[in-house]
Amino acid sequence: MQEVDIIKALANERRLQILAWLKEPLAHFPPQVDGDLVEDGVCAVLIADKLAISPATLSEHMRVLSQAGLVRAKRIKQWVFYKRDEERIRAAKTLIQERL
Amino acid sequence: MQEVDIIKALANERRLQILAWLKEPLAHFPPQVDGDLVEDGVCAVLIADKLAISPATLSEHMRVLSQAGLVRAKRIKQWVFYKRDEERIRAAKTLIQERL
Repeated sequence: MQEVDIIKALANERRLQILAWLKEPLAHFPPQVDGDLVEDGVCAVLIADKLAISPATLSEHMRVLSQAGLVRAKRIKQWVFYKRDEERIRAAKTLIQERL
Repeated sequence: MQEVDIIKALANERRLQILAWLKEPLAHFPPQVDGDLVEDGVCAVLIADKLAISPATLSEHMRVLSQAGLVRAKRIKQWVFYKRDEERIRAAKTLIQERL
């Protein structure tokens, strides 16, 4: 993953919003039946609902964030849960600081 | 200028390269007849040459960087010179740090 790809992953208002929500999942999402919001991440269905976008559109945004290493996906039953990869996000921030 | 627009301006390999070169103009560009490299900035012609891209393509990249406030343009005779706006770049870095 090139630095520019990480920046491209961030260059979208919805993806920035998703990353901000995932920073404090308990503050932004209701409790889940399957999957702990903090441990397992937030169900894709909840994120799509909150953004009022289709599952397919959400899935594309999450694919970009995943490929950039900024979030990690976990499957539980038929659901996919996403959480931030704080280590990678920290590395991305350092990269941007140094490069700029 | 929204934060996401600043990030979009950075989400391009050539624009990242230009910003890196403009950080140390003396190390990357030859002396100019008109316009001091550090004081006035680097002539658009030199930047386009170094990237091996057309003046029109370079101009579009510089327009994006200027609109994001990351560089400032100065006209001397028929030439346009560009330098980094360090204050705005610092602000952009802080913004990205806080938002992520």
